[in-house]
Amino acid sequence: MSHEPIDRNREDGEGQARPEVAAVVGCGVIGAGWAARLALSGVTVRVADPAPGAEVLLREVVDNAIETWSSLGLADGAPSPHDRLTVTASIDAAVDGAHFIQESVPERLELKRSVLAAIEAAAPADALIASSTSGIRPTELQRMMAGPERLVVGHPFNPVYLLPLVEVVGGAATAPSAIERAMAVYRALGMRPLHVRVEIDAFIADRLLEAVWREALWLVNDGVATTSEIDDAITYGFGLRWAQMGLFETYRVAGGTGGFRHFIEQFGPTLDWPWTKLTDTPPFTPELVDKIVEQSDTQSGHHDLRELERIRDRNIVGFLEVLERNRWGAGNTLAAQRSNGPPK
Amino acid sequence: MSHEPIDRNREDGEGQARPEVAAVVGCGVIGAGWAARLALSGVTVRVADPAPGAEVLLREVVDNAIETWSSLGLADGAPSPHDRLTVTASIDAAVDGAHFIQESVPERLELKRSVLAAIEAAAPADALIASSTSGIRPTELQRMMAGPERLVVGHPFNPVYLLPLVEVVGGAATAPSAIERAMAVYRALGMRPLHVRVEIDAFIADRLLEAVWREALWLVNDGVATTSEIDDAITYGFGLRWAQMGLFETYRVAGGTGGFRHFIEQFGPTLDWPWTKLTDTPPFTPELVDKIVEQSDTQSGHHDLRELERIRDRNIVGFLEVLERNRWGAGNTLAAQRSNGPPK
Repeated sequence: MSHEPIDRNREDGEGQARPEVAAVVGCGVIGAGWAARLALSGVTVRVADPAPGAEVLLREVVDNAIETWSSLGLADGAPSPHDRLTVTASIDAAVDGAHFIQESVPERLELKRSVLAAIEAAAPADALIASSTSGIRPTELQRMMAGPERLVVGHPFNPVYLLPLVEVVGGAATAPSAIERAMAVYRALGMRPLHVRVEIDAFIADRLLEAVWREALWLVNDGVATTSEIDDAITYGFGLRWAQMGLFETYRVAGGTGGFRHFIEQFGPTLDWPWTKLTDTPPFTPELVDKIVEQSDTQSGHHDLRELERIRDRNIVGFLEVLERNRWGAGNTLAAQRSNGPPK
Repeated sequence: MSHEPIDRNREDGEGQARPEVAAVVGCGVIGAGWAARLALSGVTVRVADPAPGAEVLLREVVDNAIETWSSLGLADGAPSPHDRLTVTASIDAAVDGAHFIQESVPERLELKRSVLAAIEAAAPADALIASSTSGIRPTELQRMMAGPERLVVGHPFNPVYLLPLVEVVGGAATAPSAIERAMAVYRALGMRPLHVRVEIDAFIADRLLEAVWREALWLVNDGVATTSEIDDAITYGFGLRWAQMGLFETYRVAGGTGGFRHFIEQFGPTLDWPWTKLTDTPPFTPELVDKIVEQSDTQSGHHDLRELERIRDRNIVGFLEVLERNRWGAGNTLAAQRSNGPPK
């Protein structure tokens, strides 16, 4: 039994493949996060978004990303990641000559399908196409595509430039080599790709998040707790556990020396108690929306949005440094990224 | 707009009331964690548990607790917290003369009721009685009590000596002053008491945890993901968010400058998608139990239990230090505890 910190680098596969030129289609918070991560990794990025405010948002997110990567010692000085980024309203112009394309437009199937059609019409024949969708099955996305074999889902987590997780999901027509390529691209961006082997709606993480969201909405709807109280119940308790051990490993430890079998014997039966037999979400009536908005304003409204982003990022940077020091979990992803040195 | 770290000490009420003598009834992982936190806070603790292995477990947990509190600079040298602890098989002996009693026996209503009856028969008339139950309503617990007004639920989170959250819940017969006393006791132990104002099964945190647990079990049962993959989906992604901002504040930031109303407009409709309409948990067949146990062994079995506990604690200590440095969330609870100095 060792008292030393444990090396738990469970990356599946070691290959990395950084694209020279990438396109990001759709520049909301997620698309801008992708663009920032790509540019900071040394990739030339062309961003497509017709919205007038897209570039302003993009530059703000890139500034945040530079700040966090710099505090981790991952960003070099020149050229500025900003200089690796150009913004255009045209999908054609963005994807022309791009080896890797990340689609991040709003979550509407028909919109995504039409954008993917535009992408594949203008992109190089060998370009890999990834969608950021948080829940639509890739089989649905690729149904109308001329070359569906190169479409994968690469579902990231906000802030995209800082959180390592990306869920990689193939559809019925996706080539196995496209999955491997996507995993290698994401590793080259300092991420932890998780191959979701079975295609289901919402993949893995959002299945869990959706369940929590639904419970939380009922708690607010029924007046049991405010948004602030619910957030406190997370951040002062199990949130501190889940930044480093997940549900199963946490419960394994809670089960004591009896291991997981003992844990299930002890707590399994309580699952039949009538705690959370909810199937629907409360209807988003104007009253419920007002209630949530008002409670959220009370909770967080005294912080400017960019300020909240900086606070969040500073905290997560600190957590990643702790985990790197302890050679654990997401800290190993950071260590692997660091060993690659700054982008050339 | 300030660039400085934000002071977010939202403790509701400032009162602290450290008991001189406390009793812990039931010494599993939770009871031992309570005993350790109490002893490290300078309280004389009498632990009641008839199991032969109780004291061995207790001393191991106290060793872990001393290590983490020492690394945070919170533990003084002498007398050792071990010396403040005695173990007895007798509830009567443990609670005699105790001003604060924390019950932590297994989650069976009849067992808890009989233990509470034994406690109130032998405890001082003015002793406060708290139950660690993670889901039974205090109204149910107190139904047979002679003095139900002094019974509260004080639901902690493992590791109890390190995580600040404790949910405080009163039943129909609980006196408001008992709630206030419990909040003050828990604050004196360095905790963040969260008053759950409306009594519901599973309170707040376990409502959320139960929903995640159910989804995760289906994912394993259906072969979508292993325990290890599910844990990775948590620890490399949203787990890092939730150690510092909860569900609502995270989504507020994700919604961008439009605030929470914009977030709901954007993502609210996806809640009607058929993602997680599950109501039941999968039956715990021998096959499912074997599957979980085997996957958990593959994931974590190469670590000794005490080693996993130390890894977990070292990571959480690091997170708490980051949050204290950034004057945020659970870091403020730690700062408040630190300002009280070591126990006298």
